[in-house]
Amino acid sequence: MPLLTRITGPRDLDRLSPEQLDQLAEEIRTFLVEAVSKTGGHLGPNLGVVELTIALHRVFDSPTDKVLWDTGHQSYVHKLLTGRQDFSGLKMKGGLSGYPSQAESEHDVIENSHASTVLGWADGLAKANQLRARDAHVVAVIGDGALTGGMAWEALNNIAEAKDRPLVIVVNDNERSYAPTIGGLANHLATLRTTDGYERFLSRTKDLLDRTPVVGRPLYETLHGAKKGLKDFIAPQGMFEDLGLKYVGPIDGHDIEALESALARAKRFGGPVIVHCLTEKGRGYQPALQDEADRFHAVGKIHPDTGLPIATSGADWTSVFGDEMVKLGEERDDVVAITAAMLQPVGLDRFARKFPRRVFDVGIAEQHGAVSAAGLATGGLHPVFAVYATFLNRAFDQVLMDVALHKCGVTFVLDRAGVTGTDGASHNGMWDMSILQVVPGLRLAAPRDADQVRAQLREAVAVEDAPTVVRFSKGAVGPAVPAVGRVGGMDVLREPGTDTPDVLLVSVGALAPMCLEIAALLDRQGISTTVVDPRWVKPVDEAMAPLAERHRVVVTVEDNSRVGGVGSAVAQALRDAGVDVPLRDFGIPPRFLDHASRAEVMAEIGLTAPDIARQVTGLVSKLDGRFDRTAAEADPVRTARD
Amino acid sequence: MPLLTRITGPRDLDRLSPEQLDQLAEEIRTFLVEAVSKTGGHLGPNLGVVELTIALHRVFDSPTDKVLWDTGHQSYVHKLLTGRQDFSGLKMKGGLSGYPSQAESEHDVIENSHASTVLGWADGLAKANQLRARDAHVVAVIGDGALTGGMAWEALNNIAEAKDRPLVIVVNDNERSYAPTIGGLANHLATLRTTDGYERFLSRTKDLLDRTPVVGRPLYETLHGAKKGLKDFIAPQGMFEDLGLKYVGPIDGHDIEALESALARAKRFGGPVIVHCLTEKGRGYQPALQDEADRFHAVGKIHPDTGLPIATSGADWTSVFGDEMVKLGEERDDVVAITAAMLQPVGLDRFARKFPRRVFDVGIAEQHGAVSAAGLATGGLHPVFAVYATFLNRAFDQVLMDVALHKCGVTFVLDRAGVTGTDGASHNGMWDMSILQVVPGLRLAAPRDADQVRAQLREAVAVEDAPTVVRFSKGAVGPAVPAVGRVGGMDVLREPGTDTPDVLLVSVGALAPMCLEIAALLDRQGISTTVVDPRWVKPVDEAMAPLAERHRVVVTVEDNSRVGGVGSAVAQALRDAGVDVPLRDFGIPPRFLDHASRAEVMAEIGLTAPDIARQVTGLVSKLDGRFDRTAAEADPVRTARD
Repeated sequence: MPLLTRITGPRDLDRLSPEQLDQLAEEIRTFLVEAVSKTGGHLGPNLGVVELTIALHRVFDSPTDKVLWDTGHQSYVHKLLTGRQDFSGLKMKGGLSGYPSQAESEHDVIENSHASTVLGWADGLAKANQLRARDAHVVAVIGDGALTGGMAWEALNNIAEAKDRPLVIVVNDNERSYAPTIGGLANHLATLRTTDGYERFLSRTKDLLDRTPVVGRPLYETLHGAKKGLKDFIAPQGMFEDLGLKYVGPIDGHDIEALESALARAKRFGGPVIVHCLTEKGRGYQPALQDEADRFHAVGKIHPDTGLPIATSGADWTSVFGDEMVKLGEERDDVVAITAAMLQPVGLDRFARKFPRRVFDVGIAEQHGAVSAAGLATGGLHPVFAVYATFLNRAFDQVLMDVALHKCGVTFVLDRAGVTGTDGASHNGMWDMSILQVVPGLRLAAPRDADQVRAQLREAVAVEDAPTVVRFSKGAVGPAVPAVGRVGGMDVLREPGTDTPDVLLVSVGALAPMCLEIAALLDRQGISTTVVDPRWVKPVDEAMAPLAERHRVVVTVEDNSRVGGVGSAVAQALRDAGVDVPLRDFGIPPRFLDHASRAEVMAEIGLTAPDIARQVTGLVSKLDGRFDRTAAEADPVRTARD
Repeated sequence: MPLLTRITGPRDLDRLSPEQLDQLAEEIRTFLVEAVSKTGGHLGPNLGVVELTIALHRVFDSPTDKVLWDTGHQSYVHKLLTGRQDFSGLKMKGGLSGYPSQAESEHDVIENSHASTVLGWADGLAKANQLRARDAHVVAVIGDGALTGGMAWEALNNIAEAKDRPLVIVVNDNERSYAPTIGGLANHLATLRTTDGYERFLSRTKDLLDRTPVVGRPLYETLHGAKKGLKDFIAPQGMFEDLGLKYVGPIDGHDIEALESALARAKRFGGPVIVHCLTEKGRGYQPALQDEADRFHAVGKIHPDTGLPIATSGADWTSVFGDEMVKLGEERDDVVAITAAMLQPVGLDRFARKFPRRVFDVGIAEQHGAVSAAGLATGGLHPVFAVYATFLNRAFDQVLMDVALHKCGVTFVLDRAGVTGTDGASHNGMWDMSILQVVPGLRLAAPRDADQVRAQLREAVAVEDAPTVVRFSKGAVGPAVPAVGRVGGMDVLREPGTDTPDVLLVSVGALAPMCLEIAALLDRQGISTTVVDPRWVKPVDEAMAPLAERHRVVVTVEDNSRVGGVGSAVAQALRDAGVDVPLRDFGIPPRFLDHASRAEVMAEIGLTAPDIARQVTGLVSKLDGRFDRTAAEADPVRTARD
């Protein structure tokens, strides 16, 4: 990599010739395929923005100018050009984050990695520049998909309002049904509109376009001009200009010179401007280009030549849910499914193939997913909205005010709940069991194994007068954890073996095996323990307080923020029943978690069987009068506060 | 009211002649002014939709067809035409709700009264109709302002996708800068586009339009065609047709015949269609029409002839905040303000007049308010986003992932927090102190009086590396509640008068006077009580646990959902410190509250001094061994669960 290794910062790009820039792009592609094959990560999106990122850093002067990335998984090239070329630890503990990171570089700003936010950030930064009379630029890169999010619309309305406030919006348009056809042809499209080259371009392109099926949402179609014929595809500026936004494009997103020319014009414009770039996701990597299912958007470790995964895992939580949904769909014709642009990742692809009319992909629009679910339920159907746990935060108000207030039978299936690990702070699903506690009438299930996923999904869709939630973890599902008894609606996973047990251990969801391990460790200390899985963690089972009263200590363990979570709910239920047995609640401390493997994160926050067993031992010793201060108080989990 | 009183349901409208319909509209206007003058309520919006509502109920067959209202405060006429003409108890306990209510009528659907949701509901209901092959229509009425909300955009994208799914969207466009000029002229505008009447209309209208200042957001301007000249004002269908939505309009929203014709065409169309109606807010009521500040949007009790308020109140929480913001603005040029289309209601009007460049009205777009605040803060400013507590739910993900994760110094000022009363379930600000607990680093202040509002606002804007929140109640602020001591950062409001006190009473915000009353009642029972106001309720003050340990019982009282609120946070802090003093937490039970006065609601949920004193007495008696089961356990507050 003779060129790439000499780039230590954006200004090193200035002295490269056009030929060298093309060579650099090639080197970057080779680097990405090799590096991401080894570590896993987002491959396709980054292969698509190689030239765009080079052009951005040649035209704009980061970090004085701010280059902002929506859903930062398209920032690998940006990292390479801003002094970060050691990808060996990508997404691993101590290695590079898979997203922008202020701690890594002064060239990074937005770390959130939830979609559709970049235009809001850009609007704020541009306002600050204007008020402070700073001569600096803000450029925001957003994918065409992210424009379906309501936040993007809110931001566009605000950005367009100030004609004198410079702000460059780069729409990175890689809609796959077009990219393979158009990408290579779209040289200097920006100038074609006003020259007779436009007519020549038309005749060359029309045949190819005619063979491309037109699918997707209306916004896509507007962007791509499908509705209005080919001419508008070449100049699909209508909607943006309706809003008063200057439009430049479309630009061939793999032509560095064309990109630089368009970006330089946009930079000079002095107001808000949209630069519409057509890019090819997975560009230059044959396995990615040929992949219809978009498997290469994000990959685990793969063989760089074939693009095939190196390791395969067993059944995962997602597919257990997905398979059961198909069965439910066969049994009940009122069950419909909703996804927010993640049909395959949330396991609804099989359901969609079998019942295409009964699945609704609403776009990156969690709010609409929840509100339209209320409408569907009011219309007599039972919607199942499958969504990553962290993304449901977007729809909190709608779950509360639309679904719950109207007593709608809607089931939310929260995938990737709890600590997810390598994707870092914003992908952990660690808030759902806290914020959903306040929603009146909502019932929340945390299944502990595959059988429980199936059973509790069925219990959830049987509820027709309230929202229900089924939340489960990321990745492989563990072996079945059998119940040895039942108390109220709760499964007993372990009997204490004595009539005067010490500890009631409340196990939440996938942590059941760990809780059984804690009980075994306590047993060795002579501490007798009942392990109970409430199954439905909200509302707290009526049998909880009487059960707790028969123990000396109650301990809750959950894969969720320990603030306001299941532990707090159990504690309140005990207070309400006048049961003042001491309780200790273990969970995720209230801080953002750095990227690392799930096991590393769990160890770091003290959510391991030995850590918890040690603390419980200390507490029981204290009650016994043999108080070991070190064991009981020195742990970061319980004492961590914001 | 000879005609109105004979209307018992929508079908009674069928037999009325055009002249009778006009007379009915007049009767309804007279009724509304008289009724709302007596009770308070939303006057202007309802005067604007009299003819529209009549036309809707003549063309559509509710409740088989669903007529949906965005922000249901425009549903009074709908109530009058669907069998509800006793407005004497409007918004009062036992009387009509100020919003649609399923409990009131089978003609009502959406009760949420948060803006921009109606299109999502309509999309879901239309999908259900299609899947169930029902021959029924869905019509959604949305204001032009609500279209600035991201949810409306998400819904439009989805609605436009299915060309064969009938759905009528009525845009109720009452943008005030246009309404006075255009309303009376716009007869049968829909047909003008294709006839030579169009040209005649142009020449008649142009002079008037030229005198109308063009203000407002780009969406407004697109709707009104201001950007593209007069012709597009007459036919501003561009953006909607870009999305593939059939457009009809604009229609004179006060011409019943024109409305019926347009709505009937839309109903026949067989796919998604937008009917653009121009209406005049406050139509027919001179004080409302002449009111520049839009005071008549929602009114308290007024004199029907003059439109002047009957009673005036003292200083309110909002104006205390608003005045202090002006001072802060004078002292610090980096303090900027954000509002989501509620400049005056949140008290930022004075700040805006003084610092017009430093206030940003983002539209009905709470998500954008929060995200752009993160950008502003990153750009070196300190934004203060003033918003009703209930509406911050919309921006939870942005507070967490954009503001807190990036350690941005942004201050959120939550007005109308706690029980607000007559506006009903969705306007109570009873969730903020629960859901914000999980946000790492966030600091939350609940000032108890005007002095504390000023002081804590200043403390909040001094924090530059984390989000801060200041939340206060609706309405008049009470007298100052002086501190008699200080423990850590907490104000002691009452000393127990003994070295071995019984009860530590933790008072949150405006409930301080009630807590002092509780303490006085306990005193009469021989129970000694410390009353402490933490001021900052998040994080829990480090001095709380040592203070609690010196008491026998801890009691928390908050004007917020008791699930996951301040009480739960204090309880967890005590557990974490190993302090197992019994705690009881009083707050709002986890259910939706019916409309009634604040005092009535507080009494109904047991948040009164006698109720709480009685329960605390019972608990202390139990600890003393003189356990009074009735007093300790019979109360609905503590035992209420979902």
